[in-house]
Amino acid sequence: MSSNFGDKIKLSIFGESHGEAIGCVIDGLPSGIKLDLDKIYVDMARRAPGRDKSSTPRLEKDIPHIISGVIDNVTTGAPLAMLIENTNTKSGDYSNLMTVPRPSHSDYPAFVKYGGNNDIRGGGHFSARLTAPLVFAGAVAKQILEQKGVTVGAHIAQIGSVQDEMFDKNNITSDELKKLSSVPFSTINSDAQQKMRDEIEKARLDCDSIGGTIECAVTGVPVGIGANIFSTVESKLSSILFSVPAVKAVAFGEGFLFANMRGSEANDAYKIKDGSVATVTNHNGGVLGGMSDGAPIVLQVALKPTPSISKPQQSVNLQTMKEETLVIKGRHDPCVVPRAVPVIEAAVAVGILDLMM
Amino acid sequence: MSSNFGDKIKLSIFGESHGEAIGCVIDGLPSGIKLDLDKIYVDMARRAPGRDKSSTPRLEKDIPHIISGVIDNVTTGAPLAMLIENTNTKSGDYSNLMTVPRPSHSDYPAFVKYGGNNDIRGGGHFSARLTAPLVFAGAVAKQILEQKGVTVGAHIAQIGSVQDEMFDKNNITSDELKKLSSVPFSTINSDAQQKMRDEIEKARLDCDSIGGTIECAVTGVPVGIGANIFSTVESKLSSILFSVPAVKAVAFGEGFLFANMRGSEANDAYKIKDGSVATVTNHNGGVLGGMSDGAPIVLQVALKPTPSISKPQQSVNLQTMKEETLVIKGRHDPCVVPRAVPVIEAAVAVGILDLMM
Amino acid sequence: MSSNFGDKIKLSIFGESHGEAIGCVIDGLPSGIKLDLDKIYVDMARRAPGRDKSSTPRLEKDIPHIISGVIDNVTTGAPLAMLIENTNTKSGDYSNLMTVPRPSHSDYPAFVKYGGNNDIRGGGHFSARLTAPLVFAGAVAKQILEQKGVTVGAHIAQIGSVQDEMFDKNNITSDELKKLSSVPFSTINSDAQQKMRDEIEKARLDCDSIGGTIECAVTGVPVGIGANIFSTVESKLSSILFSVPAVKAVAFGEGFLFANMRGSEANDAYKIKDGSVATVTNHNGGVLGGMSDGAPIVLQVALKPTPSISKPQQSVNLQTMKEETLVIKGRHDPCVVPRAVPVIEAAVAVGILDLMM
Amino acid sequence: MSSNFGDKIKLSIFGESHGEAIGCVIDGLPSGIKLDLDKIYVDMARRAPGRDKSSTPRLEKDIPHIISGVIDNVTTGAPLAMLIENTNTKSGDYSNLMTVPRPSHSDYPAFVKYGGNNDIRGGGHFSARLTAPLVFAGAVAKQILEQKGVTVGAHIAQIGSVQDEMFDKNNITSDELKKLSSVPFSTINSDAQQKMRDEIEKARLDCDSIGGTIECAVTGVPVGIGANIFSTVESKLSSILFSVPAVKAVAFGEGFLFANMRGSEANDAYKIKDGSVATVTNHNGGVLGGMSDGAPIVLQVALKPTPSISKPQQSVNLQTMKEETLVIKGRHDPCVVPRAVPVIEAAVAVGILDLMM
Repeated sequence: MSSNFGDKIKLSIFGESHGEAIGCVIDGLPSGIKLDLDKIYVDMARRAPGRDKSSTPRLEKDIPHIISGVIDNVTTGAPLAMLIENTNTKSGDYSNLMTVPRPSHSDYPAFVKYGGNNDIRGGGHFSARLTAPLVFAGAVAKQILEQKGVTVGAHIAQIGSVQDEMFDKNNITSDELKKLSSVPFSTINSDAQQKMRDEIEKARLDCDSIGGTIECAVTGVPVGIGANIFSTVESKLSSILFSVPAVKAVAFGEGFLFANMRGSEANDAYKIKDGSVATVTNHNGGVLGGMSDGAPIVLQVALKPTPSISKPQQSVNLQTMKEETLVIKGRHDPCVVPRAVPVIEAAVAVGILDLMM
Repeated sequence: MSSNFGDKIKLSIFGESHGEAIGCVIDGLPSGIKLDLDKIYVDMARRAPGRDKSSTPRLEKDIPHIISGVIDNVTTGAPLAMLIENTNTKSGDYSNLMTVPRPSHSDYPAFVKYGGNNDIRGGGHFSARLTAPLVFAGAVAKQILEQKGVTVGAHIAQIGSVQDEMFDKNNITSDELKKLSSVPFSTINSDAQQKMRDEIEKARLDCDSIGGTIECAVTGVPVGIGANIFSTVESKLSSILFSVPAVKAVAFGEGFLFANMRGSEANDAYKIKDGSVATVTNHNGGVLGGMSDGAPIVLQVALKPTPSISKPQQSVNLQTMKEETLVIKGRHDPCVVPRAVPVIEAAVAVGILDLMM
Repeated sequence: MSSNFGDKIKLSIFGESHGEAIGCVIDGLPSGIKLDLDKIYVDMARRAPGRDKSSTPRLEKDIPHIISGVIDNVTTGAPLAMLIENTNTKSGDYSNLMTVPRPSHSDYPAFVKYGGNNDIRGGGHFSARLTAPLVFAGAVAKQILEQKGVTVGAHIAQIGSVQDEMFDKNNITSDELKKLSSVPFSTINSDAQQKMRDEIEKARLDCDSIGGTIECAVTGVPVGIGANIFSTVESKLSSILFSVPAVKAVAFGEGFLFANMRGSEANDAYKIKDGSVATVTNHNGGVLGGMSDGAPIVLQVALKPTPSISKPQQSVNLQTMKEETLVIKGRHDPCVVPRAVPVIEAAVAVGILDLMM
Repeated sequence: MSSNFGDKIKLSIFGESHGEAIGCVIDGLPSGIKLDLDKIYVDMARRAPGRDKSSTPRLEKDIPHIISGVIDNVTTGAPLAMLIENTNTKSGDYSNLMTVPRPSHSDYPAFVKYGGNNDIRGGGHFSARLTAPLVFAGAVAKQILEQKGVTVGAHIAQIGSVQDEMFDKNNITSDELKKLSSVPFSTINSDAQQKMRDEIEKARLDCDSIGGTIECAVTGVPVGIGANIFSTVESKLSSILFSVPAVKAVAFGEGFLFANMRGSEANDAYKIKDGSVATVTNHNGGVLGGMSDGAPIVLQVALKPTPSISKPQQSVNLQTMKEETLVIKGRHDPCVVPRAVPVIEAAVAVGILDLMM
């Protein structure tokens, strides 16, 4: 198991959901970067549960505590270590999970892989709570990127049958992204937002959960980051995006729609704009031959519905090796998509920063 | 630029389309593996162009020449180096590409990134021809995997508006995969195959190209390979899949369909089968919490239509910085999807082997 | 700056001497390993200052606090994060170091590299105090190695003009190593120990410091770990040994004595011993062609005298760019060699474990 | 086994001594670097055998053949692949080595590690011949470094009992290094050279071999490359230096002499020189706290006498598991030190370039 990411920025994430603390070490940050902690807290709060009925009512404080690598809010160049204490955890709620794995959770493969030694309380190291340090790292990365004129932002593109407007791929502005990345339930269209909340509430009332998609964009990336073959922008970003729990698909530009497109429809012609080369359209999502082409990077991820539902489910008892009906107790998000928006932004920011360093 | 992949198996790919040769080094292979060269040639031939009207009429011999790491067809444990000589190349066909980048090709970002020093003949190091060494490495990986009971196979799932049958995700057999991975234009349904050929021919007659999707599966993977956070099976596989030119989306299990699914529909319940734990369905594509769960690994990739079309296109002249109409000469695949099937299998095989070593 | 080591075991060290805490993350540990915390404390105590006049009188408690990756003293397989709180630090003692770099310390190159942003209190991230997390990681590694029959131990081979007996390279026992690695001032010959203490005391009374060497051995390593070219046992071990502050030379087997040896003297003939192949001598220190050969691994490191001396020294004022005489205040070890013994053992243990995983 | 080195420059070496060819791939080179092939050939020739009685009379042509990554002698930014054909090999000379391992060679551990599948002809992948691609890579690295004002050069410091003058560590000039790195048997003092040749000839007449040391220096390195903990200049350089066959010790600055030095003797005071900070002495070999300090980087390596001697030696028969007397046939260098000088320069150049990219 390796909870490490990056070539130039090395991010190591540790901790278990119900252990003492979770946290991360970010190695390779430039020195002399002034960090705005309030902006970091905004992203942490966007990910934190308990804000409304669409998320789990557990209260997490999730205050990031910087241990090293920063003096007077300025990076020193030494590894930045950060801790978030775990509080308000009720391990008892999870006590029957050891023997009966929750369907579509990590429980069963983790049991096999770690021989029953892994911490199962609250999902342990597999808990989606481990995305909090990623959001922290992403918030740091965003600030460094911002100084380079690069902006990352995302919105909920779909929840269940409800769809938001999509980005106008070739005309995304950094202001639009900044606005999206400063609010808790980011949508382009505010009507869509209410419909999405309704969709989630319906799932909740049904003791069920619901999936969705998130669209993310990056503006200001210079031409030529990434490379072909094994170092494509898509390889780097997908690698960290698939590290986010529940993400099951990653698409750049037109994604799966390319399958039914002709070259003449999919190609992004070039034009001269303000004396520079620019694309007329941005079907490719800002990446050609694995490299950024100057257009905004645009990608979409699909998140599966959280497997923690309160409906009875069929599972097996790993002790008796008999089938058993499982009812998951505790309170769980009926939809993780809204809280996942800052996580996706964070993953993209860390990936882009690693490519740009 | 780094053309290196892998943690335990280190694959380094080199060469330019119209240079002297292309090739690869595979480091970290176990010693004592008997290689069946004929099987390797089969995969190389499946990728090679010129088999029928659906692909480019250029003749490539693509005979892999092993330089080191193998004696009497048995791996020695030392790095396996392989060369494929380049023959039958007409550099003159590409002579106007330096100043006028082909839309949606790597030309423009590569020009910026490498300051005009990169080899542009035939795409240089960015040519899809560089997938030949990947197919070689994949063919080697497949044979090592086969000895561990792991089989990789893929088929064309869609070309344009034509769709093949999809895998029955929870009931894929290694025989089915072996059959698919031994033929040049792999489809599950033979009617679909003819319709796809027609679709490609239509694009060709229109001086255009067409995209598609490929579905790939892996059987026999033991429970528990991969890990969560930054070492998920999805991260590893997507990272190498996005290295394949034209791939713009990667989806596991239900992929983007998860967005409109409820947890109760998406969860894969457990049952006891032959005394072991098994999933009742396989919506998750064999990966839970980043780890293999014992069900077949099932994924889908989308490939954009090749940007090399003979229709006139708008571009810019990088010398004069004026807009210009470009007509790409030379003969090009109207659809790269059929030839990409063994490339996708190869990428998956190398990724899975790296995870299993 | 990357404070990361290892391919299979990934060790990340963070913290500054006078910051809130120092610590490490160890990723890739096997699950199910029962840790004996008392043994870890023994190594931590061997490194800790203040035990006698040979070391700095500052009191460090250095109690390692495990944050994650361990439940009931058993590893879970998730990253093991550990913190050591910093206490009893007097930053005032170091207040003039910013402008006048201490000769032969990291002060000057760090000032240039980090643009004055690095934490200079007590050496910051460059402090030898950062070896405490390495000792912790080494103590964990030793316990895993012990379960594989591998033992690491070291002794002070030389301080100033005083030399200890050297290992009988081909006949080192694990008991001998265990004994050495359980005491604070490890020497083979007890007379040498007293003379060394005297040598250190002389340096201290002279307001000076003194260097030395440490010899380290590993028994029980199976034949064939490591590899040639870039993965030699010597490469891996030297890489981590040169991470230990003050280490300026690393030698395997006869080391620099090989320069005046004939092949007929230096070669280790083979014999049959208890039905197995064994070397008659062990001039090569257990490594041939980069691989372990079954004999004990034997190496020696040289440590320079600590540059922190209280004698006046010539330096420059980085503000005025004028030469200035510097007098370093505070109390410092006149000799770091005794405390470095567990650090060297730790570095070797982590390196060997990474090779053996 | 991993024959890969580097973080930013990735060097992969492949081939077996008596296989078809040996070679390397260098990935990550900047584009647009004009290579002077003649200078590369000079270094290749310095390493090649057969120049005089001090080395093996086998004729190797060792002409590097560049396959990719270079057009018109200018790097393209794509991986540079290079091949050297193997010629003039007499495999028969080595036919008894499979069953009776040569003492102090890689034969025995390689036999165990690779289960008898490794290529044993001429040492296979373990042959010192594999240093030819390293010399090539080093020659490329030197040219890139030269453009940054960095020069690498080395000389034979000792062979047997004969010693050369040593570098005046704080006053090394790039001219001095260039002169040393352009001749085949590099010594500072020409008298020492003749005595060394005599020492080698004596060993040869005795059917024996002799060891030695090489001192290497680098001028022009900017302050602040490398970092502390796991990224020290010493870690990086020692890691690649210990990849060179026969190297058994690496020392920076005063090396093992530090053991008997006081801090007041070992510290390098600072002065102002031409308006900049400079060290008064250079005992630390240009590295402080793992970082370059602006003084020349100075290091020394010890090479053991080559284990291939024609004197009868005791070994064991791995088939019968009985002791046996071995007489190694074929012609071998009585001293590899002179030919190793360009190899050491190459290793250092590649290491420094990787740190500086």
